[in-house]
Amino acid sequence: MVVVMAAEAGQDDIDGVVDLVRAAGGDAFVSRGMSRTIVGVVGDVERLGTLNLRAMPGVGDVVRISAPYKLVSREHRRERSVISVAGVPIGPDTLTVIAGPCAVETAEQTLASALMARAAGASLLRGGAYKPRSSPYAFQGLGEAGLQILADVREAAGLPVVTEVVDPSDVDLVASYADMLQVGTRNMANFPLLQAVGGAGKPVMLKRGMNATIEEWLMAAEYIAQRGNLDIVLCERGIRTFEKATRNTLDISAVPVVQRLSHLPVIVDPSHSGGRRDLVLPLSRAAIAVGADGIIVDVHPHPEAALCDGPQALVDADLRELAAVAAHLSPLVGRTLTPAPALAAVDA
Amino acid sequence: MVVVMAAEAGQDDIDGVVDLVRAAGGDAFVSRGMSRTIVGVVGDVERLGTLNLRAMPGVGDVVRISAPYKLVSREHRRERSVISVAGVPIGPDTLTVIAGPCAVETAEQTLASALMARAAGASLLRGGAYKPRSSPYAFQGLGEAGLQILADVREAAGLPVVTEVVDPSDVDLVASYADMLQVGTRNMANFPLLQAVGGAGKPVMLKRGMNATIEEWLMAAEYIAQRGNLDIVLCERGIRTFEKATRNTLDISAVPVVQRLSHLPVIVDPSHSGGRRDLVLPLSRAAIAVGADGIIVDVHPHPEAALCDGPQALVDADLRELAAVAAHLSPLVGRTLTPAPALAAVDA
Amino acid sequence: MVVVMAAEAGQDDIDGVVDLVRAAGGDAFVSRGMSRTIVGVVGDVERLGTLNLRAMPGVGDVVRISAPYKLVSREHRRERSVISVAGVPIGPDTLTVIAGPCAVETAEQTLASALMARAAGASLLRGGAYKPRSSPYAFQGLGEAGLQILADVREAAGLPVVTEVVDPSDVDLVASYADMLQVGTRNMANFPLLQAVGGAGKPVMLKRGMNATIEEWLMAAEYIAQRGNLDIVLCERGIRTFEKATRNTLDISAVPVVQRLSHLPVIVDPSHSGGRRDLVLPLSRAAIAVGADGIIVDVHPHPEAALCDGPQALVDADLRELAAVAAHLSPLVGRTLTPAPALAAVDA
Amino acid sequence: MVVVMAAEAGQDDIDGVVDLVRAAGGDAFVSRGMSRTIVGVVGDVERLGTLNLRAMPGVGDVVRISAPYKLVSREHRRERSVISVAGVPIGPDTLTVIAGPCAVETAEQTLASALMARAAGASLLRGGAYKPRSSPYAFQGLGEAGLQILADVREAAGLPVVTEVVDPSDVDLVASYADMLQVGTRNMANFPLLQAVGGAGKPVMLKRGMNATIEEWLMAAEYIAQRGNLDIVLCERGIRTFEKATRNTLDISAVPVVQRLSHLPVIVDPSHSGGRRDLVLPLSRAAIAVGADGIIVDVHPHPEAALCDGPQALVDADLRELAAVAAHLSPLVGRTLTPAPALAAVDA
Repeated sequence: MVVVMAAEAGQDDIDGVVDLVRAAGGDAFVSRGMSRTIVGVVGDVERLGTLNLRAMPGVGDVVRISAPYKLVSREHRRERSVISVAGVPIGPDTLTVIAGPCAVETAEQTLASALMARAAGASLLRGGAYKPRSSPYAFQGLGEAGLQILADVREAAGLPVVTEVVDPSDVDLVASYADMLQVGTRNMANFPLLQAVGGAGKPVMLKRGMNATIEEWLMAAEYIAQRGNLDIVLCERGIRTFEKATRNTLDISAVPVVQRLSHLPVIVDPSHSGGRRDLVLPLSRAAIAVGADGIIVDVHPHPEAALCDGPQALVDADLRELAAVAAHLSPLVGRTLTPAPALAAVDA
Repeated sequence: MVVVMAAEAGQDDIDGVVDLVRAAGGDAFVSRGMSRTIVGVVGDVERLGTLNLRAMPGVGDVVRISAPYKLVSREHRRERSVISVAGVPIGPDTLTVIAGPCAVETAEQTLASALMARAAGASLLRGGAYKPRSSPYAFQGLGEAGLQILADVREAAGLPVVTEVVDPSDVDLVASYADMLQVGTRNMANFPLLQAVGGAGKPVMLKRGMNATIEEWLMAAEYIAQRGNLDIVLCERGIRTFEKATRNTLDISAVPVVQRLSHLPVIVDPSHSGGRRDLVLPLSRAAIAVGADGIIVDVHPHPEAALCDGPQALVDADLRELAAVAAHLSPLVGRTLTPAPALAAVDA
Repeated sequence: MVVVMAAEAGQDDIDGVVDLVRAAGGDAFVSRGMSRTIVGVVGDVERLGTLNLRAMPGVGDVVRISAPYKLVSREHRRERSVISVAGVPIGPDTLTVIAGPCAVETAEQTLASALMARAAGASLLRGGAYKPRSSPYAFQGLGEAGLQILADVREAAGLPVVTEVVDPSDVDLVASYADMLQVGTRNMANFPLLQAVGGAGKPVMLKRGMNATIEEWLMAAEYIAQRGNLDIVLCERGIRTFEKATRNTLDISAVPVVQRLSHLPVIVDPSHSGGRRDLVLPLSRAAIAVGADGIIVDVHPHPEAALCDGPQALVDADLRELAAVAAHLSPLVGRTLTPAPALAAVDA
Repeated sequence: MVVVMAAEAGQDDIDGVVDLVRAAGGDAFVSRGMSRTIVGVVGDVERLGTLNLRAMPGVGDVVRISAPYKLVSREHRRERSVISVAGVPIGPDTLTVIAGPCAVETAEQTLASALMARAAGASLLRGGAYKPRSSPYAFQGLGEAGLQILADVREAAGLPVVTEVVDPSDVDLVASYADMLQVGTRNMANFPLLQAVGGAGKPVMLKRGMNATIEEWLMAAEYIAQRGNLDIVLCERGIRTFEKATRNTLDISAVPVVQRLSHLPVIVDPSHSGGRRDLVLPLSRAAIAVGADGIIVDVHPHPEAALCDGPQALVDADLRELAAVAAHLSPLVGRTLTPAPALAAVDA
């Protein structure tokens, strides 16, 4: 932590900062510049961070130097992690494709989507039974009936299931059906939910908040980790900017940036970031090439009848191309495409 | 709703759109331009909105025309609403000042803050017992013990209490202590929480999500309203932009924009938007002058020791100036300053 | 300047930084923290700033501490400046209203607008003869013929003239007609233009770039100042954000923030930030109340026929209200409304 | 164009709009919805666009339907264009690598950079003699002496030259040395400069403004095209967002979006968007994979001594990897790597 004194700060002000830091068990080093004096503060940053130095007389600014997250940082764990979702790995040596319908609507639609996903190279099935929708008048998901459909389709299609949970009180129920819990973009800073999934004993996919900095995203992961669960996969899904040609702006740079800061895997959602079917394939190629540990895409057998986000769902023809892309690009970035489990292998 | 056909769309494509709309009970009017054809769609927009017209062949774009919120709109209720919080009004003829500590830390600090607030012209007390913090290692609030302190201070200081709730399962408990429930910026799109406060029988203060458009904010209010609760006060508290000189960018224009779109009162939080004590008074003046129905500010008897957001808390000297500002500016915008309840009047 | 060493930096890396700084005539102080080492660098920051310390081995980050602008800073000049535009002051004790048409279209329209402006309390006339338009097919301004109209109207209406210049090679011509040169939002980082107006011998109104941070804005002012011209008035006119209900988001907080950092006056443009006539009056009130040194508004005798930005122009009825607002609010913020020059007083 | 009438609009208001449109030579179709009436407007949109319909009584909103750019659109030219820069193609079948120093500092540094660029697979040399810098105290470029160095190095290294111009009055001089003129991000909306390069008879590289929407970027290209020059290459270089981990946020989705809207080639600058050397290779892979027509990267023989943007310059080891990436990824996206001209072939 560095305290930058205001230009008009006097020696008393500097002494005040140094004394306060030392009284709290830290140490402080004073460097006098031509126009400003700075005080380097060392010691237990969590404790010193509560000192509210910014409110001291003569203090101009306080600049934090070390990252505020710990368990999810590469300083905590040097090697990049491999997360296993019912035996399917997500990590630095593989490319894992997750696919499925945005929302579970019927057993038939979900099964058809799962078979499409499997044919396209997916090894995990996504699908939402609880949908956070900006309008209270929009389809909100099937709830537990949707979870039951996902569980049935898991057996039929042989793909472990990733599904979203939106209410802390639903976490145990959803965890009893799902292989991986998803925290969506609107809930990235829903701290009770993060704590609940941190204690649920299942891997978690944490989508980036559409307004979250990378540091805030890693802090959200730290909330989960702090409850003892380090089986976290981060998912970049676009941030909100002034550009309106796409639903959100995919922050492709976030993938290598996060991989330097954290040992957790990072995947990309090209469907929700672009919000347009014609962008899903180019953005999938970009995501694989930039070094993502996986991608997650929407598929639907009949997008024009989808109850949620139909405009971005891939259809059959796209999926063959996606399968080819994933197979050909993976080796160029030193990865193997994660195979789907053998059909008999999945029984919750 | 207007469907804009792609430049290359043929007559079959146009007919397809018209037929689909009519089959769903709507009507469609075709206008042929020099380079594009547009189809005006009229009828029940909720039903027609599920048609996924964007996925039809030949469709370039679909532009929604009418607002997606209903109950909170001025078309639903022409007159601007007055919300009563335990008898204290927030509405178009008054200026209501809400003040108090960011977080409830101790009974002494809360009482001292409440007395400061009252002296500064506040008629409602704010204070958080549940704090959503970006770090899991930061002070998270006192929970129910904090609610009890707020209830005690309400009697001593004579100010009804506004306090935040962050978990749907806590809503009933918080509502049993509080006079008004606050939904914070990080939870504006926490739909289960919105639905829970919609059913709790207490007025709600809904802060704008730091990344939310005005339309999304009004849709969040619609979630609460749809559960039968129209006692909602909107609170502008700054949005996230590229500018880093302030914590967030106060969107002062949102006040008149919202007042034209919705009948709900709108107040401004100059403390959390700026994040700096020296900005609170100028931004309070701006908020009152632009026509806000109230302001909500942080105060603290000892900001340098605050466990949360000390850098932005007002202290005694500021509060006298705030009181003068509120008293002098209110009449210029056709309002009277809402008086605090008589001391005997508040007993939950 | 503070150099933050990477976690894995060794003693050699630290020594390398210290040696490089000392070789360049600066000094360096090493503070060892528990997880990081920081090196405080003091000396001539411009010279040390060229060292490219970020590229040295073991360096994690370089944090600049002192502001990069000098001449426009309050450290350079403690007292807030008063800028005189042909005798009309803009500064800390007055509220100066600038009004006029967005674009000069005809002599009649310009004169009518100027008389509207004067009646509304304006003491300076705005009007564009060179218009930067996003479409090459839109009206681009009358050029020198427009400047001549402005000069004629100045005499008739008794208001000194503020007008925009967009090309460095036009600066001398525009300066020969105008009393104040305006640099528009799209040209805030047009450095040859800034340098040219810096040498033109006329006061300059520098609009904030719609994507510029406050620091970048002050650096643009520094470009003008460095050419010997400190007669600069800054104009906040809204920044680009995700919100689309308004054309831009008026950053009202920028006014007090800039006034702490710089001695230059700051005014607000409520017309271009909101882009909507119904927002001009509320935003004008907010601007005056927050402490702006002036406002600049669009007026037009026939907005529905305006060739540029008609939707935001005030008409007669609004102007009476604006005059009343300016007169009543000024004393509350310790200012007097700047009077228009006596009619005989203006002859270039 | 679609005019959306306000909810309270009467028949007179609707008739007024229809009459005005018809008087201007257009036609208008009225569609009455349950809550709103819309008027579809067809005809010459440029002429109708000046009508200022938004200011008419009863008008709620005006929504433009067709794109405002023409010459650069795919509707104007169906096939994607190939631009030739002194014989080096940039277009849909090739991947063209442009590399060189951010700024020309000395003849030695420029030659060394050019040889590095050529070895890495580049077929064009970049390098700035005029540098737009946010500080007036920073290195501003060598001017014409720098252009002469570039011309000399072109012969020695056999690479045609791309260089920036910042002032309209310098365009002819720069064009007399350069093979391609670059308009930088800060000048994307410098309309006199766009018009000047439009008339200079050389191909133009137009960088996206860091705050520009895709539509505004294409309108800037239209300014150049309208002067008769369609030899334009667009360059995505990152947009300004709230995220600060990277200098700007590379909008990778802009590449496929622009390729659908315009026939012009689009390349990507991974150096300036990220601002960090460690991101250049991953972002280059992403750019090639998403389908960019080329990339432009900074190289420097001694980044720690660079006078401009040293932290992002690639060095020798990176360049071998870049060459391998470009060679291996190009065929996967159906392209061939553009070869550098034979050494004898370049003599201006």
